[in-house]
Amino acid sequence: MLIEVDDRCDERLRDFAGLRDAQLRRDEDRFIAEGLKIIERAFAAGCTPRSLLLQPRWLEGLRHVLEDWPEVPVYVAKETMIEQVSGFHVHRGALGSFERPAQAPLGSLLGGRRLVVCEEIVDHANLGAIVRVAAGLGWDGLLVTGGSADPLYRRAIKSSMGASLELPWRRMTGEAELHALREAGFRLVAATLRPGAVDLSRFEPSEKVALLLGTEGAGLSEAWQAAADDHVRIEMTDRVDSLNVATAAAILAYALR
Amino acid sequence: MLIEVDDRCDERLRDFAGLRDAQLRRDEDRFIAEGLKIIERAFAAGCTPRSLLLQPRWLEGLRHVLEDWPEVPVYVAKETMIEQVSGFHVHRGALGSFERPAQAPLGSLLGGRRLVVCEEIVDHANLGAIVRVAAGLGWDGLLVTGGSADPLYRRAIKSSMGASLELPWRRMTGEAELHALREAGFRLVAATLRPGAVDLSRFEPSEKVALLLGTEGAGLSEAWQAAADDHVRIEMTDRVDSLNVATAAAILAYALR
Repeated sequence: MLIEVDDRCDERLRDFAGLRDAQLRRDEDRFIAEGLKIIERAFAAGCTPRSLLLQPRWLEGLRHVLEDWPEVPVYVAKETMIEQVSGFHVHRGALGSFERPAQAPLGSLLGGRRLVVCEEIVDHANLGAIVRVAAGLGWDGLLVTGGSADPLYRRAIKSSMGASLELPWRRMTGEAELHALREAGFRLVAATLRPGAVDLSRFEPSEKVALLLGTEGAGLSEAWQAAADDHVRIEMTDRVDSLNVATAAAILAYALR
Repeated sequence: MLIEVDDRCDERLRDFAGLRDAQLRRDEDRFIAEGLKIIERAFAAGCTPRSLLLQPRWLEGLRHVLEDWPEVPVYVAKETMIEQVSGFHVHRGALGSFERPAQAPLGSLLGGRRLVVCEEIVDHANLGAIVRVAAGLGWDGLLVTGGSADPLYRRAIKSSMGASLELPWRRMTGEAELHALREAGFRLVAATLRPGAVDLSRFEPSEKVALLLGTEGAGLSEAWQAAADDHVRIEMTDRVDSLNVATAAAILAYALR
């Protein structure tokens, strides 16, 4: 249902208003897909659209998917208005609002063999990059702590190139899930820089691996380090102090896949 | 030499004026270090300071290095003024201008065993991330094409966490350097997604490896693909189309190190 809009305060655009404020978005019942490619991925992943806000030039490319959703409002506006509504420069002027899919049940995650578990990864780009590489390298799913970024926040989805919509994930309620992982046969493998950890190149991963990744800067908490079964470190030169957490995740996810 | 400044048009601050424009910076004889940590790394790497622009609170932390450079002007200003001069939000309000170090001679790079060669990597954050992981994993150096980003551009240094100042690197003049690499005994290993490439996990790297990484999006050009001796691909699921080039670089640099 095409609707031209020219009033940036139009009430019907409220899904797209003020998108810069990540904090407001965390627990909402929708997510925002930014850019044509991510919108197409959301449709391909079976997500239910609420409405779209687009420049006219994207209509043709989306025609085949929009035919299945004749009742969904598609607001058409100029790039400058899209920017005024959302409050930021929208990548190529295409936004989609979709119903937030349910999180993966813990039981289904526990049935996998390779899981990434993120403790307080707060940066959306880092979390999105971790999701992208985990999905790309065949890991089965993701758990994130309460304080971690939202894999379905606009910038995280974008950074994941839409993989947030493909990789099963779940937000943890506490450390109970770590115990559940162990009871399901997972070894908890902590990525760490601390001395005494096993060099990654010498580490033999077990049948089921839950890779624990810590927050940017400080790394895994003492509690999580203590809870882990194994501690591995990526062998590094002294030319750098550390690697970016998404970079480390890529290397670990490849080596332990 | 401490100098308080309160005029954002002060001529003495011209090294720090209008830093948002990357194009203007490429071929200059200086580079900008942003943030206390990167400034300290620049001093540690032996770079020659031209001047600094700081909030007063960083003076104490830099005292030990500034003692060696009594004649270098250290402009002290409020955060808002630093932002007005530079034209962007300066991470924690500390900027340093340093003389640009000479590029590594080709001959010294050819003496290494592991080199990264970037064809048209234009994103500063990606290039910085590649530099950081190459330095961290013990690679010997970096070559970048004429159209690639500048490893010493402010944001690239920041993204590299200062590793741009540690890892020897050089800008290429053309494809002549590819031939020089081969003549020096390097195998040119193209990172690619194309069918027919060898899976990374089955690839046996030779004694000397030059890893060719292509531009964001399109990947390596046909000419570089044709010039390569080997073609490797990271085995991926169909949940993603590709990996970010810095992510791929991390995996390849680890697997081929």
